Amino acid sequence: MASHGKPRRDRASEYENQIKEIRAQLTDQVKCLDTQVDFRQQLLQDMSEFLRRKAEINLEYSRSLEKLSDRFSSKIRNSKDHHIFRKEQNLLSPVNCWYTLLNHTRQESRDHGTLSDVYTSHLIPRLAHIGEDLSRLSKKSKEVGLQQQEDLLKLVSELQGAMKTYQLYHSDCMYAEHKLKEAEKQDEKRSGKLGEHTASSPVADRGQRRSSLKKSERLVEKRLKKYLENSQKCTKARNEYLINLNTVNNNIENYYIHDINDLIDCCDLGFHLSMSKTMRVYLQAEEKVQMSRQQSLQAVEGAVDNFNSQTDKNKLFEMYSETFSRPTKFEYQPHEGDEVSKVRSEPLLHQELVSRIQHIKSRLESEHLETEEVKKTLKATLQSLLDLIGVDEFDLSEVFQSSQSTESLKSTGSDTSTKTSTAKRRANQQDTENFYVSKFQKYLLGRSTICKLQAKYDLLKEAIEKAAVMDSNISGQV
Amino acid sequence: MASHGKPRRDRASEYENQIKEIRAQLTDQVKCLDTQVDFRQQLLQDMSEFLRRKAEINLEYSRSLEKLSDRFSSKIRNSKDHHIFRKEQNLLSPVNCWYTLLNHTRQESRDHGTLSDVYTSHLIPRLAHIGEDLSRLSKKSKEVGLQQQEDLLKLVSELQGAMKTYQLYHSDCMYAEHKLKEAEKQDEKRSGKLGEHTASSPVADRGQRRSSLKKSERLVEKRLKKYLENSQKCTKARNEYLINLNTVNNNIENYYIHDINDLIDCCDLGFHLSMSKTMRVYLQAEEKVQMSRQQSLQAVEGAVDNFNSQTDKNKLFEMYSETFSRPTKFEYQPHEGDEVSKVRSEPLLHQELVSRIQHIKSRLESEHLETEEVKKTLKATLQSLLDLIGVDEFDLSEVFQSSQSTESLKSTGSDTSTKTSTAKRRANQQDTENFYVSKFQKYLLGRSTICKLQAKYDLLKEAIEKAAVMDSNISGQV
Repeated sequence: MASHGKPRRDRASEYENQIKEIRAQLTDQVKCLDTQVDFRQQLLQDMSEFLRRKAEINLEYSRSLEKLSDRFSSKIRNSKDHHIFRKEQNLLSPVNCWYTLLNHTRQESRDHGTLSDVYTSHLIPRLAHIGEDLSRLSKKSKEVGLQQQEDLLKLVSELQGAMKTYQLYHSDCMYAEHKLKEAEKQDEKRSGKLGEHTASSPVADRGQRRSSLKKSERLVEKRLKKYLENSQKCTKARNEYLINLNTVNNNIENYYIHDINDLIDCCDLGFHLSMSKTMRVYLQAEEKVQMSRQQSLQAVEGAVDNFNSQTDKNKLFEMYSETFSRPTKFEYQPHEGDEVSKVRSEPLLHQELVSRIQHIKSRLESEHLETEEVKKTLKATLQSLLDLIGVDEFDLSEVFQSSQSTESLKSTGSDTSTKTSTAKRRANQQDTENFYVSKFQKYLLGRSTICKLQAKYDLLKEAIEKAAVMDSNISGQV
Repeated sequence: MASHGKPRRDRASEYENQIKEIRAQLTDQVKCLDTQVDFRQQLLQDMSEFLRRKAEINLEYSRSLEKLSDRFSSKIRNSKDHHIFRKEQNLLSPVNCWYTLLNHTRQESRDHGTLSDVYTSHLIPRLAHIGEDLSRLSKKSKEVGLQQQEDLLKLVSELQGAMKTYQLYHSDCMYAEHKLKEAEKQDEKRSGKLGEHTASSPVADRGQRRSSLKKSERLVEKRLKKYLENSQKCTKARNEYLINLNTVNNNIENYYIHDINDLIDCCDLGFHLSMSKTMRVYLQAEEKVQMSRQQSLQAVEGAVDNFNSQTDKNKLFEMYSETFSRPTKFEYQPHEGDEVSKVRSEPLLHQELVSRIQHIKSRLESEHLETEEVKKTLKATLQSLLDLIGVDEFDLSEVFQSSQSTESLKSTGSDTSTKTSTAKRRANQQDTENFYVSKFQKYLLGRSTICKLQAKYDLLKEAIEKAAVMDSNISGQV
């Protein structure tokens, strides 16, 4: 109604502009959906290419790890020690740990191989299928969409036609009305003149006038008929135009609100589902690798938990039992016919033995004291040494958290301050170790000395006591 | 005592054999411990070499993954779509997922780089330190051990000396006893003769005999003194021998029971602790990688969970709002001066309109029924199609469990039966899809038709009702 009163040219061009805009929009819509499809195809292609390359990288990684673990496993198989250890079925704890480390690496190799296989055999074909499905479905839904657009444009063009017909018939109607009014005016004028002249004009004139009046009435009648005819035609044309207008507007609304939605849904059909299924296969595979890695790491951890120097030492003693078994004691070998087999105190020797045992006793006591001291120092030194060895000098979380890029890693953890502190700690460790070993040697020597003194003391004591018993027997006899 | 009565040669050689055996055992012990140290050094060297190579492999893996993710990330950065999506800050769900996948890969690259760095900067130096510590400590404890062995052998050799002294003195003692007995026998014989001859022999003879007796008694006295002297010497030597014997046996026991244990402990000092600490760094690093991977996989999983076609469609509408916004309605454009703007029923047209609306009504009803049917079929077909797309056709657990080696993988999961079933499923999917799309098109057409008919129906109904009202007004007036 805004265009009410505008020149005809403008009204028609207003529709035309609107139609031009809609046409452009429809074309843009097709283009936009095509772009989306192209974009998705590109995405699928990129992901495929990405996974293809990632599969290669993983296969390469898998092979390198396999070669690595094989190299060291075969080295174990070929070593002579291997037979000893395998036979024993009792691996020393660090060797056992080394085996689990190699197994872990072999498992890593297998898992990355499987990963590579999952990419190649499962994911890439799925992406290809998604691409095929997408291209087929998008083509089909585009066809359906174009059909709908065509229908819409057909309606719009029908609207244009209906409007034109209406305009034409309305013009005709207006013209007929104009003509009718003209005739009516003429007729009115004539019938007025007739009434004016009826009394004064001659009969012949009157007859002439009456026939002219009749003619005019007939014209009015004829024009009225024409007008009514045109008016009806105009009403019909207007009705059609209005119906077409409503149809077009309703169908445009239907197209924009429902059809576009449904067409995009049809084009999308299954895409998100397939994509998410594909990605879930990817995630599942990664999850499996995570689990497998966790398991083989637990095996390594178990081996580390089992590190035990005492058990290893005992295994060593078992393995080399001949080398470490105590030799038979040296037996007393009495000289021909000598029946004495004990240390004997004789009256003339007695005093010497007594003074000797006293000397030994005092040496034994002081040696015990000293060695006990050394032992205490040794124990304390051992603890400090183990503390020095066991000290934690860096935190891996930092190394992992601060690693924002591969480049920045190169220096972390091996920086100068860490190096200096390590060097300091190790120097300290060596000093403590030197002190420990010197104390250790002193301790062993002390223990040997005690052992020797004790051996003498025991025999002398026995002899002296025996002599005392014999003495008292003798004095008792006396 | 078993050797009691054996010839002297055998007794001495028994000790010698024992000593020979001990010497051999002691040498073997040193050799055995040396072998253990060599074995450990070899283990450390193998582990170092293993980690060095594993670091290389991981660095290579890290670089390949970095290059891979960079390649696709830069492709995104350079694409024109990127700007659109980045600006929007509203990524479409598959694109978002693709970004998280690239991020995950970048994180993997970083983690493996860090792993490589941890091997190189932390583990390998630690192993080198363990090797140095081991070599230093084993050398020192070997020296201490050799000193103890030397002491032991010195005791043994002292035992041999003491035994020889004892044997010598016992021989002397026996000889002195023998000589004493000989003199006593002679003396007895002489003193017997003296008693025999005392009454009958001449005085001069008697004096001669008495002096001979005195001489014999002096000899006995002299030999007794000698014997007592030797006997004491023998007792002292036997005492020394017995004391030495006890000392040797005690010290051998001490060496075999305590010293060897302590020497091995000293040589082992810190080895197990350092090894376990090193391995724990390895485990910690792997743990961190596990955690990091878990995190970035969770991000990918989140992106997969967010796959949503409806949200994506709405984002698309937002992004291309101009393309998808409803155009302005076509307005009614009345022809010059025409004041009628509604469909009009006029008496002459009335019947035509009535029969027209009846026809439309019946068409509308049947079209509604038909379209409703099509809609139902469409819905059911959509569900079967989604079921076909969403079907799970393989189990990854099998792929991972059955993978005992990288070689055996190649065929799993991509075997013929799976391929056949996939091909069948996809053929089935395409058939269903074709059916779906044909129904979809039918549905859209039906809806458009309903839309058109409804638009006509609504206007006609309005016009007819209005005409009826006017008619009744007129008849009311009449």
